[in-house]
Amino acid sequence: MSEEERKGGGGGGDDGAAAAARAAEQARELQDAAAALLTRTRAEEEALRRRAAALQGELRRLREAAAAHADSEKVEEDLDRATCLITEGDVASLLPSKTQGTFLRMFLGPVNLRAPRKEVQLKVKEEYNSYRDRTALLFLGFPVILLFLRQWLWNRCFPALPVQLYQAWLLFLYTSLALRENILRVNGSDIRPWWILHHYSAMLMSVISLTWEIKGQPNCARKQRGVELFLCWAIMQGFVMMLQNRYQRQRLYTRIALGKAKRMDVVWGETAGVEGQLLLLCPLLFLLQGFEGYVGFLLLRTAHTGVVPEWQVVVCGILLISMAIGNFANTLDTLMAKSRFKAKMKKSKGKRDLDTCPSPTGSSPTDSATRA
Amino acid sequence: MSEEERKGGGGGGDDGAAAAARAAEQARELQDAAAALLTRTRAEEEALRRRAAALQGELRRLREAAAAHADSEKVEEDLDRATCLITEGDVASLLPSKTQGTFLRMFLGPVNLRAPRKEVQLKVKEEYNSYRDRTALLFLGFPVILLFLRQWLWNRCFPALPVQLYQAWLLFLYTSLALRENILRVNGSDIRPWWILHHYSAMLMSVISLTWEIKGQPNCARKQRGVELFLCWAIMQGFVMMLQNRYQRQRLYTRIALGKAKRMDVVWGETAGVEGQLLLLCPLLFLLQGFEGYVGFLLLRTAHTGVVPEWQVVVCGILLISMAIGNFANTLDTLMAKSRFKAKMKKSKGKRDLDTCPSPTGSSPTDSATRA
Repeated sequence: MSEEERKGGGGGGDDGAAAAARAAEQARELQDAAAALLTRTRAEEEALRRRAAALQGELRRLREAAAAHADSEKVEEDLDRATCLITEGDVASLLPSKTQGTFLRMFLGPVNLRAPRKEVQLKVKEEYNSYRDRTALLFLGFPVILLFLRQWLWNRCFPALPVQLYQAWLLFLYTSLALRENILRVNGSDIRPWWILHHYSAMLMSVISLTWEIKGQPNCARKQRGVELFLCWAIMQGFVMMLQNRYQRQRLYTRIALGKAKRMDVVWGETAGVEGQLLLLCPLLFLLQGFEGYVGFLLLRTAHTGVVPEWQVVVCGILLISMAIGNFANTLDTLMAKSRFKAKMKKSKGKRDLDTCPSPTGSSPTDSATRA
Repeated sequence: MSEEERKGGGGGGDDGAAAAARAAEQARELQDAAAALLTRTRAEEEALRRRAAALQGELRRLREAAAAHADSEKVEEDLDRATCLITEGDVASLLPSKTQGTFLRMFLGPVNLRAPRKEVQLKVKEEYNSYRDRTALLFLGFPVILLFLRQWLWNRCFPALPVQLYQAWLLFLYTSLALRENILRVNGSDIRPWWILHHYSAMLMSVISLTWEIKGQPNCARKQRGVELFLCWAIMQGFVMMLQNRYQRQRLYTRIALGKAKRMDVVWGETAGVEGQLLLLCPLLFLLQGFEGYVGFLLLRTAHTGVVPEWQVVVCGILLISMAIGNFANTLDTLMAKSRFKAKMKKSKGKRDLDTCPSPTGSSPTDSATRA
C-alpha cells in the first residue's frame, strides 16, 4: 500500500473502514449544519417580515393623517423614503409578492419564480431586453425575406410552408414574451396588464393563423392579400420594436448608473436625457396602431366580400382591431400619466418622486408607453 | 384631535413630523437588518457549499479505493449513507444543480427555477402528478366526444374547428408538460431525457397537425381517415395515462410515508406493494406503443397512395413511428434496469439501495418506465 493511500484511508481493512466512518460522520455534521442554517434563516426572515408588515401599516396610517392635515414637505419626504426602503430595498424580497397569476400556473405549475436578490431581478430584466432586441431583428427580417422571395423566386405566390413557419415562430415568440412578462411582474415590474393581455391576443391570433389555409393559384394575389397585409404590418412592428428597445435600454442603463447613489433623481434625469427619442417614437407608435387597425379592417372586408370567407379571417380582423384600439388607449393614458408625473416633479423641484420609487427592475410610467 | 390620533402620532405639526421621522428611522434599521441577514446567510451558505464539495470529492476517492480493494459491506454502507445525506438532505439545495437547459431558457429566460426547500420540491412533484390526472381525463374525453358527435350529429364528417381546437389544446398540453418536466429535472428528478424529447416531438406534431387542412365532403370518410386514427390513438393514450398516474401516485405516497423514517427500505417496500399493477401496466404500454407505430405507418400509407398527399401527413407519420420505437426501447431499458436493481437488492438482502437514494422528488428506475 502506498503512503498516500494509507494516509487518505483508501483501500481495504481498518484504514478504509475508519475513513468511511469518518466521512459518514462528516456528512451527518454537514446535514445538521445545513438544517440548522435553514431553520435559523427562516426564523429570522419571518421576524423581519413581521416588522416590515407592521411598519407598512404604520406608514399607511401616517400617510392618511398627513394628507388630512396638509403636512409639511419634510414629513412627506420622510414617509416616501421609508416606503421606498421597504418596497425597493432588501426587505422587499421577504415580503409577499404579487400572485403569480393563472397564465404562469397553467404553463409551469406552482413554482416560485421570484428572484431572491435584487441583482438577479435586474439580470432577468436585462435579459428580457436583449431578448426583445434579438427577436426584433427576426421580426423585421423574416417578413422582408418572405416578401422579397415572393417577388423574385416564388412568382408572386407564397408557398404555404415558409409562411406557416413564420406563424409558428410568432406563436412561440408571443408565448415566451407573455411568460417572461408575467415573470417580470412577479419580480416587481409594474408593466401594465394590457400589454400582457395584448400578447395573449397575439398568441391566439398566431394559433388561428396556423389553421388558416394558404391558398395558391389561381388568382394568388387576391387570395393571399391577407397574408401580404399581415407581413407588411409585421415589418413595421419589427422596426418600431427595435427603436423602442433602444429607448428602453438607455433608460434602464441610466437608472442602473444613477440608481444606487441618487435614487430620487433618477426618473427626472433619465426623462430629460431621452426626451428627443420619445418625440420620434410616439408618432411612430400611433402610426403603427392605426395601420394595425387598418389591416384588421381590410381583413374583415375581404371576408365580407367573399374573397376569403373563412372564420379565421374574421376573427383575426376583429382581434387586430381590438388590439389597435387597446394599444392606442393605453399609450395615450400612459403619456398623460407621464405628463402629470412631470408636472408634479416640477412642482416639488425634482427632488422627490412621490409615490413611485425608481425601481431598477420595475418601470416608471414611461416604461409601458413604449411597448407594442 | 381625538385621543387616538394624538397617541398614534397622526395629524399635522410636530407630532406628525416626529412620527414620520421615527418611521423613516425604523425603515432604515429594517433595511440594514435585511441586508445584514442576506450577506450573512450567503456567507454561511458558501462555507457549507465548500465543505460539501470537499466531502463529495473525498467520497468519490474512497469509493474508488473501496471498489479496488473489495471492501466490507459496512464500508460501502457508510459511503452510501454519506452520499445520500449530501445529495438528498438539506445540503443538496446549496449545491449547484443541473443546468436548466436550452428549452427553459428559450421560453423563460435566465430565471432560477430551483425550489430552495425539499417540501417545496415535493409540492411541485405532487402538483405535476395531479396535473397529469386532470389532463388524462381531458385526453380521454375530448376525442371520445369528437368521435361520438361525428357519428350522431356531424353525419360522419368532422367539421374543422372542433378538431383544430383539440389540436391547439394538445399543443398547449405538451408545451406545459415539457416545461414542467424540465423544471422537475432542475429540482432533482431523474426523469429520463427521452421522455422530455418525446414531448418535444409531440409539440412539433401538434403544430404540424394545426397546419394540416381538414378536408370535408366529398368522400369524407376516406380523407379524414388520418384524423380518425389519431383520435383512436389519443383515447388509448388517455386511458393508459390514467392508469400510470394511479401507479405513480401510489409510489410517491408510499415514498413520502416511508421516506423519512426508513429511507433505505422505501424502494423495496413500494416495489412489492404495486407489483400487481405493473403487471397490468406493462402489456398496455407495449400495446399502445405498437398502436402508435401502426398509426404512423397508416399515415405514411395514405400519403403514399395519394389519398392525402400533404407533407404534414408524411412528417406526422415519421414522428409517430420514431416516438413508438423510442418509447419501446426506453420502456424495455427501464424494465431491465429495474430487474437488475431488484437482483442487487436481493443479494444484499434488501438492506441497501446501492447507488440510488430514494429521493422524495426524484424517481427510481421504475418511475420512468411508466411514462408515455
